[in-house]
Amino acid sequence: MKILIKNANLISMAEKQEQVLKDVDILIQDDEIIKIQNNILDEADKTINAKNKVVLPGFVNAHTHLPMSVFRDTLEGYNLQDWLNKKIWPAEDKLTNEDIYNATMLSCIEAIKTGTTTIQDHYFKTEEIIKAGLDTGLRMDVTRVLMDIDNDLETRKQELLNLMEEYQNKYSTIRINVGIHGLYTSTSKAVEEAISIAEQNKLNIHMHFCENQKEVEDIKNMYNVKTPAEVLNKYFTKTKNVLAHCVKLTKEEINAISKTHSSVVHCPVSNLKLGCGIAPIVELQENGVNVALGTDGQGSGSSLDMFETMKYASLLQKGINENPKEMTAYETLKMATINGAKALGLEEKIGSIEVGKKADIIIVELENIVNQPINDIVSNIVYNAKGSNVNTTIINGKIVMENRKVLNCNEEDIYEKCQKIAERILQD
Amino acid sequence: MKILIKNANLISMAEKQEQVLKDVDILIQDDEIIKIQNNILDEADKTINAKNKVVLPGFVNAHTHLPMSVFRDTLEGYNLQDWLNKKIWPAEDKLTNEDIYNATMLSCIEAIKTGTTTIQDHYFKTEEIIKAGLDTGLRMDVTRVLMDIDNDLETRKQELLNLMEEYQNKYSTIRINVGIHGLYTSTSKAVEEAISIAEQNKLNIHMHFCENQKEVEDIKNMYNVKTPAEVLNKYFTKTKNVLAHCVKLTKEEINAISKTHSSVVHCPVSNLKLGCGIAPIVELQENGVNVALGTDGQGSGSSLDMFETMKYASLLQKGINENPKEMTAYETLKMATINGAKALGLEEKIGSIEVGKKADIIIVELENIVNQPINDIVSNIVYNAKGSNVNTTIINGKIVMENRKVLNCNEEDIYEKCQKIAERILQD
Repeated sequence: MKILIKNANLISMAEKQEQVLKDVDILIQDDEIIKIQNNILDEADKTINAKNKVVLPGFVNAHTHLPMSVFRDTLEGYNLQDWLNKKIWPAEDKLTNEDIYNATMLSCIEAIKTGTTTIQDHYFKTEEIIKAGLDTGLRMDVTRVLMDIDNDLETRKQELLNLMEEYQNKYSTIRINVGIHGLYTSTSKAVEEAISIAEQNKLNIHMHFCENQKEVEDIKNMYNVKTPAEVLNKYFTKTKNVLAHCVKLTKEEINAISKTHSSVVHCPVSNLKLGCGIAPIVELQENGVNVALGTDGQGSGSSLDMFETMKYASLLQKGINENPKEMTAYETLKMATINGAKALGLEEKIGSIEVGKKADIIIVELENIVNQPINDIVSNIVYNAKGSNVNTTIINGKIVMENRKVLNCNEEDIYEKCQKIAERILQD
Repeated sequence: MKILIKNANLISMAEKQEQVLKDVDILIQDDEIIKIQNNILDEADKTINAKNKVVLPGFVNAHTHLPMSVFRDTLEGYNLQDWLNKKIWPAEDKLTNEDIYNATMLSCIEAIKTGTTTIQDHYFKTEEIIKAGLDTGLRMDVTRVLMDIDNDLETRKQELLNLMEEYQNKYSTIRINVGIHGLYTSTSKAVEEAISIAEQNKLNIHMHFCENQKEVEDIKNMYNVKTPAEVLNKYFTKTKNVLAHCVKLTKEEINAISKTHSSVVHCPVSNLKLGCGIAPIVELQENGVNVALGTDGQGSGSSLDMFETMKYASLLQKGINENPKEMTAYETLKMATINGAKALGLEEKIGSIEVGKKADIIIVELENIVNQPINDIVSNIVYNAKGSNVNTTIINGKIVMENRKVLNCNEEDIYEKCQKIAERILQD
């Protein structure tokens, strides 16, 4: 199967490339990008006219809890601990396997419709999440999250090993990694087990880290340390680590994140909405840390729209650093694409549009009123475009959305099912 | 002319009313709301089915510079002073009257398409702005801005008096007020003149105030005072004042704003993007100050979408106060509607949906993927809806947008004209 995209404004995100290339054609064969140049004359099975449109690598949303779509807009009036205790955990206990599948389908549709092609997820009942990923075509790094404050480490560990047995290296878009819920819910025993599995199987570790001040205090108590940095420096030196949130950092944590070559996933919308604060992203980057972007689950983050997340990320750093030159649109776009790929160790395969890479591509229209007039395409994408500007989404060489219609699923049916799930599990 | 809206989820914003009323009908006669109840049986010239939709008062965008639509996405890589000196002011010198009209038309279309029904604007060549307002039907409080650091006070003053002569009390949707550019560009002579015109004619004053630290220092130097609060307390005690931005405030300014009964227009997106900072909104409200919302011009604020502005306003206060209970969705919706009306002194006419008020109404759909499932309508409006969710906009009893089509204008033609204006005036 060959797909030819014609006459695009290409933002390839390739290194040492101009930010925007005009009037470019892109040829895809099966799952791979095989040619990028002006005026490609090869025959193709399908040709897409991208004139006046913008072609970008699909976004990498590096921190989600996909089945939490059904918890959208349930946070109002709660603080974090009450929300979890009174609202979320009792409702999660009622989620069946089928609920998890349908709630994840809703999230997969939302991701694809807003331009995301890769998700790094962190939840339980992972088989159902993978099933929705395979059904919609979304690229997924998933995990069965480990923790042991509930004394259930062995079950969780076994589930993770089963997942690996069943899915690892079987599907080109699905990968299993090791999740640790957080250092405040996992003793050194759980952390050591997780690290040992990760090292033996060359897997990444995906973990919440320093999301708010209470978590920082809990880590200090749990590990009897002066700073969370000590825990990072002691245990996380040999694994590839992806740390979500990183809001409440001191110089020590920033140094430890840099020294352990950990990547950070910045989730600005969720961090604000939960009252956590604003992560020191400019300082992390100045210390050489790779920073990716994530939305978190919709319960806290509201949506999976990475356009919104990019705008918040950029504007917050300009605001708190009182410098409009900080976190440029292009730097922010890197966070949402190639930096996400680097965080997951997938930068050889995805995160930019280059010959030899997998075809994870979105085609964006700038014809809405809020995009007019177009003075700068990169700024327009980051500050004015929204998820609904995405016209076409291609993942691993397959068209999964065309003219805003997600293929291989019945959107309205999923909406209806998820409304019923929400009403059932959230009623008191 | 009678319009009947049927079966709405109504968020009326009326005091002592439930936040959301289900299955409500609203009857409009000419410019006025004449009946709100279940199952209205009156005949009407037009009936709108609002089942499953949300009906709200149209937003009051209380601080804009409408013709700046053509400067969208021109800020990247500049600090504020360089952007103004090198980019904006030279380009503004090239704007013809026709350019101002077309650029304002673009903004009027954007406002109407994103649910705004009233604008408070601050710019020059005001006649052209009013013309676009009358052509599209948008409700406008406009001004000819006074200042005197360029020694041109007399001309500006005469232009303001001419405007009043020509337009005041002539059109039900247009009102003239007194603008002062800012205390750092206006000596006490200009301020006294402005206040005298405002007092004589019972007009409001609309002024930038403490947008960034440099402005604070400039005010101190210009007026030889220890704090900008001293200037407020000395001159602004008898007029109705609307102060845009108010980012860099000390306790003294907060007290002075409260004591002078001034309203504040919070412009969170612009304040971040220009690197000004985050305004202390919770503290202002705790001191009894009426806070409205604004987008600022698109050059700094990116868009006129008040949904985006509401979400930023709410989330920023939760984030910086580290409290997810601060600035609830409903409180934020008040800022975008009735508080805006109060700031302009129009709370008897607009800002809520009540019998006897002018019919400034929007009908919003929640059928997009990012609105699913619907757990809480008010949260869904503030955190998940976007300008593009607005289906119908009614101003002063007239339908100005229906099924997302803005009536009385050719959108594509305006897009094309504004693209040409931008290319002409922004080329070096």
